Amino acid sequence: MFNVHDFFFCGLHLRGNTSNPVRSRVTPVFATQLPGLNTLGISMVRIDYGPWGQNPPHIHPRATEILIVIEGTLQVGFVTSNPDNRFITKVLQKGDVFVFPIGLVHFQRNIGNGYALAIAALRSQNPGAITIANAVFGANPPIPGDILAKAFQVDKSVVDMLQSKF
Amino acid sequence: MFNVHDFFFCGLHLRGNTSNPVRSRVTPVFATQLPGLNTLGISMVRIDYGPWGQNPPHIHPRATEILIVIEGTLQVGFVTSNPDNRFITKVLQKGDVFVFPIGLVHFQRNIGNGYALAIAALRSQNPGAITIANAVFGANPPIPGDILAKAFQVDKSVVDMLQSKF
Amino acid sequence: MFNVHDFFFCGLHLRGNTSNPVRSRVTPVFATQLPGLNTLGISMVRIDYGPWGQNPPHIHPRATEILIVIEGTLQVGFVTSNPDNRFITKVLQKGDVFVFPIGLVHFQRNIGNGYALAIAALRSQNPGAITIANAVFGANPPIPGDILAKAFQVDKSVVDMLQSKF
Amino acid sequence: MFNVHDFFFCGLHLRGNTSNPVRSRVTPVFATQLPGLNTLGISMVRIDYGPWGQNPPHIHPRATEILIVIEGTLQVGFVTSNPDNRFITKVLQKGDVFVFPIGLVHFQRNIGNGYALAIAALRSQNPGAITIANAVFGANPPIPGDILAKAFQVDKSVVDMLQSKF
Amino acid sequence: MFNVHDFFFCGLHLRGNTSNPVRSRVTPVFATQLPGLNTLGISMVRIDYGPWGQNPPHIHPRATEILIVIEGTLQVGFVTSNPDNRFITKVLQKGDVFVFPIGLVHFQRNIGNGYALAIAALRSQNPGAITIANAVFGANPPIPGDILAKAFQVDKSVVDMLQSKF
Amino acid sequence: MFNVHDFFFCGLHLRGNTSNPVRSRVTPVFATQLPGLNTLGISMVRIDYGPWGQNPPHIHPRATEILIVIEGTLQVGFVTSNPDNRFITKVLQKGDVFVFPIGLVHFQRNIGNGYALAIAALRSQNPGAITIANAVFGANPPIPGDILAKAFQVDKSVVDMLQSKF
Repeated sequence: MFNVHDFFFCGLHLRGNTSNPVRSRVTPVFATQLPGLNTLGISMVRIDYGPWGQNPPHIHPRATEILIVIEGTLQVGFVTSNPDNRFITKVLQKGDVFVFPIGLVHFQRNIGNGYALAIAALRSQNPGAITIANAVFGANPPIPGDILAKAFQVDKSVVDMLQSKF
Repeated sequence: MFNVHDFFFCGLHLRGNTSNPVRSRVTPVFATQLPGLNTLGISMVRIDYGPWGQNPPHIHPRATEILIVIEGTLQVGFVTSNPDNRFITKVLQKGDVFVFPIGLVHFQRNIGNGYALAIAALRSQNPGAITIANAVFGANPPIPGDILAKAFQVDKSVVDMLQSKF
Repeated sequence: MFNVHDFFFCGLHLRGNTSNPVRSRVTPVFATQLPGLNTLGISMVRIDYGPWGQNPPHIHPRATEILIVIEGTLQVGFVTSNPDNRFITKVLQKGDVFVFPIGLVHFQRNIGNGYALAIAALRSQNPGAITIANAVFGANPPIPGDILAKAFQVDKSVVDMLQSKF
Repeated sequence: MFNVHDFFFCGLHLRGNTSNPVRSRVTPVFATQLPGLNTLGISMVRIDYGPWGQNPPHIHPRATEILIVIEGTLQVGFVTSNPDNRFITKVLQKGDVFVFPIGLVHFQRNIGNGYALAIAALRSQNPGAITIANAVFGANPPIPGDILAKAFQVDKSVVDMLQSKF
Repeated sequence: MFNVHDFFFCGLHLRGNTSNPVRSRVTPVFATQLPGLNTLGISMVRIDYGPWGQNPPHIHPRATEILIVIEGTLQVGFVTSNPDNRFITKVLQKGDVFVFPIGLVHFQRNIGNGYALAIAALRSQNPGAITIANAVFGANPPIPGDILAKAFQVDKSVVDMLQSKF
Repeated sequence: MFNVHDFFFCGLHLRGNTSNPVRSRVTPVFATQLPGLNTLGISMVRIDYGPWGQNPPHIHPRATEILIVIEGTLQVGFVTSNPDNRFITKVLQKGDVFVFPIGLVHFQRNIGNGYALAIAALRSQNPGAITIANAVFGANPPIPGDILAKAFQVDKSVVDMLQSKF
């Protein structure tokens, strides 16, 4: 039988550790963390940004995201599908809300020397996240370099260099 | 053709006016306010609570809600369906997250003399809200008093009194 | 392996016992009673009404309902969401059909000295039902009285009295 | 703006005319008849059966059906998919409930010399109905006879005869 | 933990055996054959047609189908619901694509003395298939002959003959 | 009123022009090309591959894909979500079927000096496609170079070079 703790998650007041190359941190509250979300199709994340930190270009394969800026100034953007690949971007201040439609490449970055914080909700209890750079250049095992070289229209040495980063 | 403003809403940094009988205010960001939400099935609200203010017992007929406390201390609760009508409640501090499953009666109240603030997301671009007291005792035109008297097992004079408040 | 009994329920010809304060009885045929309904998203109920009996204001958190009057005369109604809380009501005769949209507060009552009977279908194999009076004033444990007093804008003594009924 | 009549349908108390070859009549209450059903995904039908009348083998392409016998005795049945084509059947008395899963061939017939009546709900506001005999042998224009002859493994003259009936 | 074989199926290059009365063969790739399809709501089939072979009138109870002709010439068709029972048909050449909406009676037949091949996708990982002739005249146990006789408006002897084929 | 042409698309027998940097071509049959697909949630594509051509890493934001190799030999692969970014890959021969779950980065490439051909179905009438390289480095207007430099952990000059290709 369920109890109140199945519907409760504690800890989203804690600042995430942004000491990493992209200087941001996503703290998820998905069904794994909050079992009461099961079958209910929604979840939440906290996103911390160090100075000029970014939540790099990524995709949620199973969820639209709605985000609110709690603190700081964020540039956000997403890119529409082929063939237009239109870049839609906006600078958000505290209290601004933005929507990232399901499956589109999007990012946020802190455009300031201070700290920034956003809260976002996702329309799945298990939305998934695909960081483009990691999925493409940091897959395990690696995607063959000649595939990426042709896809990105660069020498394989550039791909080797990119893959060496992840 | 859409543009960036379809995906953007400005204003959720503004404190809602809580000078009302329940001393709370819900500011919605639904598809009406943020057209880019259409067909995407998610939305957001800001909820302000004055001292001991409450977001009174209500229901979202078309959405589960996930809520995070940004400031203050809130008691939250929901009641399960018949026949148990089990009351599930928790005191939430800043950073705590809670889930209110679709269609259940739930509330939040500020248990403190200060101000409180929550942000919540709902799993519909048009979730709806039914404040129980208003729907039952403040419907327009009123629900016949003898129906309510029997439903609440009180004299009709009590219902008359309750209806006079809304 | 399934057999024919998984798709069959016997007993909805039996009049429900309406010897209770609201003088009505709902007999459910949900997936619990009729296993073949699982994953199929529909169910049925029989509703008996003694003289002037009512199926008091309630909500199905997960289903729209369509109802037909088999015998007697019923007043039915539902209340729309905030901010209008519009009361939509109709007197139904035998053979009349009415729809209660998902998640809205609705009721039926027998407006006659005889017996009344309705059959309704719900768009979920497990629609749930929340009787407003019971969920609000009869929750277990009780919702704190001061919350309800403010929500209903009455003295706590009125809430105490209301809670004592359930 | 909607009004109460959008949620109301009058006329399902009227016996359908069963003076036809199958001696049954289905009276639909779909979104066409009851506009308030739009987007709500449910509907209702009344089915009248003359003595030994049948609602012949048919399919609802977009809905599961749940049926209750109001009067009389009905034999009902459905056939499972390939490869088993298992025939699941039951004799229903007044008050019995039966489920016909979405898209399966099913029928009801009155096994008695009196009149029979059933009410059924369908999980779509526009469920559709495909009477097998009519769709196969009465299509307009006709399905080529040699296709049907091979499908039913009979001489084309038998198909011609069958097609001449519709 | 899953591995690559969960997402892979081998064998759809093999010609199906069409030595049967309808001279066609459907080879399914559903979730049973390809476990990675689970929850993803899509599947595929290969359909082989001998000379003048047909995939006889049938229904997928849980899926729309999209078909492409890989080799040969096919006549395809479907019949709309009651009351129109409109027969929509087309002769398809190699490379032509056709859609069969969910739950409608449809067929394909090879109109040529050579071999024909189609690939189709279905919008369910478990779409099901109901061959009309088998479900109606070959059910196990059989549907009572007098029901079918009235449904098809023929003598019971014709039904007996039809049932004897399956 | 619809007619047969709404359900029919002609032209998928035509080899797509692969004279482009990635030496592949996707020919879509979405609801835009085949209006009868509307609301039915499925579509089809033809994919041509020149020698060592590839359908470069991309995502369908709204659809799972099931693919069959009609001619040639393809290496296919997809990468799972964070944090594993596991690369799942397989060499497919004629007749092999593979599934790419919704929203994951995936690709195919012709591993041969001849021509290759695949047919794929997608679980949406408007699945969308996001070619990673184009969305990331070829967006219009461009995503700011410093964002990409940090995301891919390279000098901005590398990003400039990458962006100059698209």
